[in-house]
Amino acid sequence: MEVLPGRPVDNTAKIVDLLSLARSDRVELIVFPEMAIPGYLLGDEWERPAFLRECEACGEEVRVAATGITVMFGNVGLDWQRRNEDGRVRKYNALFVAEAGRFIGPESSPYPFVIKTLLPNYREFDDSRHFYDNRKLASDLGLALHDLVSPVPTSVGRIGAVLCEDAWDLDYAVSPLGILGEKGVDFVVNASCSPFTFNKNDKRNRVFAAAASRLGRPLVYVNNTGIQNNGKTVFTFDGASCIYDGKGGRVDSLPPFVEGVVDCTLPLVGKTAVGASEILQDDMSTLFQAIRYGTERFMKLCDVERVVVGASGGIDSAVVAAMYRRILPPERLLLVNMPSRFNSATTINLARELAVNLGCGWLEIPIKDSVTLTRAQIDGVEARWPGGVRRLMLTDFLMENVQARDRSARILAAVASAFGGVFTCNANKSELTVGYTTLYGDLGGYLANIADLWKGEVYALGRYLNEQIFDRPVIPEGAFKVVPSAELSAAQAVDEGKGDPLIYPYHDCLFRAWVENWNRSTPEEILEWYLEGTLEEQLGYSGRVSDLFPTSTHFVADLERWWNLYQGIGVAKRIQAPPVLAVKRRAYGFDHRESQMGARYTRRYEQMKKS
Amino acid sequence: MEVLPGRPVDNTAKIVDLLSLARSDRVELIVFPEMAIPGYLLGDEWERPAFLRECEACGEEVRVAATGITVMFGNVGLDWQRRNEDGRVRKYNALFVAEAGRFIGPESSPYPFVIKTLLPNYREFDDSRHFYDNRKLASDLGLALHDLVSPVPTSVGRIGAVLCEDAWDLDYAVSPLGILGEKGVDFVVNASCSPFTFNKNDKRNRVFAAAASRLGRPLVYVNNTGIQNNGKTVFTFDGASCIYDGKGGRVDSLPPFVEGVVDCTLPLVGKTAVGASEILQDDMSTLFQAIRYGTERFMKLCDVERVVVGASGGIDSAVVAAMYRRILPPERLLLVNMPSRFNSATTINLARELAVNLGCGWLEIPIKDSVTLTRAQIDGVEARWPGGVRRLMLTDFLMENVQARDRSARILAAVASAFGGVFTCNANKSELTVGYTTLYGDLGGYLANIADLWKGEVYALGRYLNEQIFDRPVIPEGAFKVVPSAELSAAQAVDEGKGDPLIYPYHDCLFRAWVENWNRSTPEEILEWYLEGTLEEQLGYSGRVSDLFPTSTHFVADLERWWNLYQGIGVAKRIQAPPVLAVKRRAYGFDHRESQMGARYTRRYEQMKKS
Repeated sequence: MEVLPGRPVDNTAKIVDLLSLARSDRVELIVFPEMAIPGYLLGDEWERPAFLRECEACGEEVRVAATGITVMFGNVGLDWQRRNEDGRVRKYNALFVAEAGRFIGPESSPYPFVIKTLLPNYREFDDSRHFYDNRKLASDLGLALHDLVSPVPTSVGRIGAVLCEDAWDLDYAVSPLGILGEKGVDFVVNASCSPFTFNKNDKRNRVFAAAASRLGRPLVYVNNTGIQNNGKTVFTFDGASCIYDGKGGRVDSLPPFVEGVVDCTLPLVGKTAVGASEILQDDMSTLFQAIRYGTERFMKLCDVERVVVGASGGIDSAVVAAMYRRILPPERLLLVNMPSRFNSATTINLARELAVNLGCGWLEIPIKDSVTLTRAQIDGVEARWPGGVRRLMLTDFLMENVQARDRSARILAAVASAFGGVFTCNANKSELTVGYTTLYGDLGGYLANIADLWKGEVYALGRYLNEQIFDRPVIPEGAFKVVPSAELSAAQAVDEGKGDPLIYPYHDCLFRAWVENWNRSTPEEILEWYLEGTLEEQLGYSGRVSDLFPTSTHFVADLERWWNLYQGIGVAKRIQAPPVLAVKRRAYGFDHRESQMGARYTRRYEQMKKS
Repeated sequence: MEVLPGRPVDNTAKIVDLLSLARSDRVELIVFPEMAIPGYLLGDEWERPAFLRECEACGEEVRVAATGITVMFGNVGLDWQRRNEDGRVRKYNALFVAEAGRFIGPESSPYPFVIKTLLPNYREFDDSRHFYDNRKLASDLGLALHDLVSPVPTSVGRIGAVLCEDAWDLDYAVSPLGILGEKGVDFVVNASCSPFTFNKNDKRNRVFAAAASRLGRPLVYVNNTGIQNNGKTVFTFDGASCIYDGKGGRVDSLPPFVEGVVDCTLPLVGKTAVGASEILQDDMSTLFQAIRYGTERFMKLCDVERVVVGASGGIDSAVVAAMYRRILPPERLLLVNMPSRFNSATTINLARELAVNLGCGWLEIPIKDSVTLTRAQIDGVEARWPGGVRRLMLTDFLMENVQARDRSARILAAVASAFGGVFTCNANKSELTVGYTTLYGDLGGYLANIADLWKGEVYALGRYLNEQIFDRPVIPEGAFKVVPSAELSAAQAVDEGKGDPLIYPYHDCLFRAWVENWNRSTPEEILEWYLEGTLEEQLGYSGRVSDLFPTSTHFVADLERWWNLYQGIGVAKRIQAPPVLAVKRRAYGFDHRESQMGARYTRRYEQMKKS
């Protein structure tokens, strides 16, 4: 089911409807996802007792409705008599099992619900911030974890019931599934609220198939759809619920990003199983789906019905505009081109061609007069002090940012409000990494929906849109061919082949190693690999670094230039950036938490640099 | 000592210098704070092996230097052979004790360092995200926690060594200090990295004095100074290190926000002790210190040397300007007034008077021409679609935001860059709560240094600045008297007594209950208190609510208006707000994590509302 975060009453109504429907279909057991009643990524909503009471009351409704059928659903488990370690009421991330109007807890559990044992605290997860740990509970009660983790005895069998991370136990010293296996279960249910991440389902298929096969029992995986966010980072949930047989084959599954039902009869006879290794990996079509789904749901969340895209003629804004065209009818999409004296006819025409191809609205508002006015009002103007005056100077370099801010904060924001909508942020992950973007300028917008894609991935998504989605080149070929450029000065004239200082795809690969590697690399590793001659391989860069940088001095200068930006002004800009739609691991925001500390280099780096 | 976050080499150089100095003074034991080498609030810096290796190497340097003296210091404790539960290298928040060139671990510990047992995961803390838990370790080793927590046997005695939260054990099922007390220690050392929070030291004095008295042993509290940040939220550390005697009296202490040394000889004879209840609570002078200190250190972190303040004539910008005048010489501070046709001579004169009083720079740049140009470029303009055109309309209401954005994104940003500096965000916590501010407008800036103060606290800080700091009314009396107003329309004309829709101090009290109450209240509790007649008492509001709202319908309309803003557009705006300097509990950002979910009301609220 699609879970609406923070909407327990709505989610409960849906659960009760669905279980009634299932009962009339003579279903014996129906399973809903982890945190199906409250939602999961709610920030500090868990600190509000009124919200918790409402979730508890909603759970009671489901319990009462659970007659003639066994129902499993995720909710917050409350113990009003005990405290969490922050002094607030005790909360568990819990899985409830109800039948005949009552809750059934695991054998030997002090609570009438299953408690999540393994609490993730990496990436976007803050489980230990809100929920008490089953291991701590065991210790408090003077028990071993083995005593607490037990099957749930129901009329349909002894269920090995766990929540999400409980089955991702590879890096933990304890294994809830292992304990349940020892105690004996008829089948396993994993209720999850697991955000979509590129290629995560591939790993999940391997991990869960192995678990089912180890236990020799069927495993039911139930995950929700919808979106949930941590404020700065918006996550999609792809559902993709499925069933594994006792040999680890996947016998049934839902397509991603679709609400639906997987049903089966145990024992699983006559079902064709697909091995984990035969299941397709994610590709550009999955990324497209995730971005379209996440954008569309986020618009609904924010009541956005009309969208303005600042269209420069480049690939980023073209891809964003084409994505919105798949969500919105053309009359609700407006492209605005805002030329200055530095914009070429080439890019203006590309932007206009894009609008024509998409059939959406088009508006051209030049920024020349306003930029001239700003320069006249500030450049050369004298600020007064008691002791004298100081003349302000707006250099050409500073005027670049004046132009970018004029476009977004003056024009796009006003056009969006006059159009009754919002404007988009078209930044990609490469720009966002090094802050190659202007605050209150092109970094503005209500959502940055391609900001988790490297520049190379934006190009690939553009190709995919033309070839697979629109089946014609709605994004003009020129947008792929033109040199990427901010066109904010004569030094960035695209018709002379001049543009951004970023070298694609090399810098994509370099930045990915800094941001997305699980053990994140730094200039120390980069320089080490460079000296070893393994840099291309380590970065997954298909070219040769020596073709880009004739000497090690050039190489180091480039490395430090971008590292300083990534760790310096880049962090400051990201703090004020719009929400980022996460589709891969380590999206900026709550999945990649940052402190403003400035760039630094280790002593080992400095030694290698000298050598 | 002042710890520089993410600068292990610099911090280590300081530690080594200080321990040499102490040794030459014949000191036997010197204690440095928690995480004195790496810093503590570093975002996900802990995911970089190069950083961890450097911290480890720095710790080795201190070990080698520790001859002729016993040294205690905080650092990350690494076990490269084991994994954290995220699959990365095992990390502990650790306290190292070194003497005679070697590390000494607690009796019976598998590691040569003390491990933090109680890991905070509330407010700004993410300890379980990065560090392994001593309780999990005990369980992994098949031990009880009691076996792992032990005194450290040194040449100066058996030390009960703990880290910060270990002594804040009231809400935990286990007590490291209790275990150490049972095992017997000569004295207790608590090494902390504890962010300043208004009135937290008062609680710390009570908790720590009680602990010392329970054990009947002296307790040494060592905390760092400096600032550290989570990106969105900047925290000051006030140090305030001190010593409690075995009866719980405080025998010596450092003033807040000052690096320094507390020294003593054990047993503590001839020292005058102050009881916890006699110690002064925080007041406006503490808030002033925290804001000045945090702002000054943040400027240093960001290499900010010149500051531009948009001065409206109102109290917020006046307080911000006066605060910066305490940090900067007048030639580096520039006030800019940006009048529109709605600004009164009253407020323009107040802003100018402020600049004169502060002796800083002054500049007046009107926004009329630009706003007129923007209106001309957008209002009534026709956007083209294949099927026809649509005329855009900029209403008077939308023009309010156009003005605010023009001031910040067009003028202040350009003036700041031309001045070689930054511009400030002058938002207060009341405005930030309900988003009574314009994105890319007055919500812009490099730092929001009064954004953790309610409007009433801003007034009080203004009075304090005039009376205690400047000793003359640098902030003109008129800034206190004028009605708070954005002056963006004729409906906000201050000379006619018109202004903001916020009712001070009532809304301050209401918002505080939503944001700062440990168990955060919602409209459900507010309405319950209103119906009970206890609202004023619950909110700490000294007036009468019935004087503000003649009927319950008016009361409810007001309640819902602000709740909708707080939970709706307010969240969206805070996501893109500048870093907030935290001085109280629940500053926006990482101390008050939020999800964009829209406003909702519980069923119980709806029932009460009907009744």
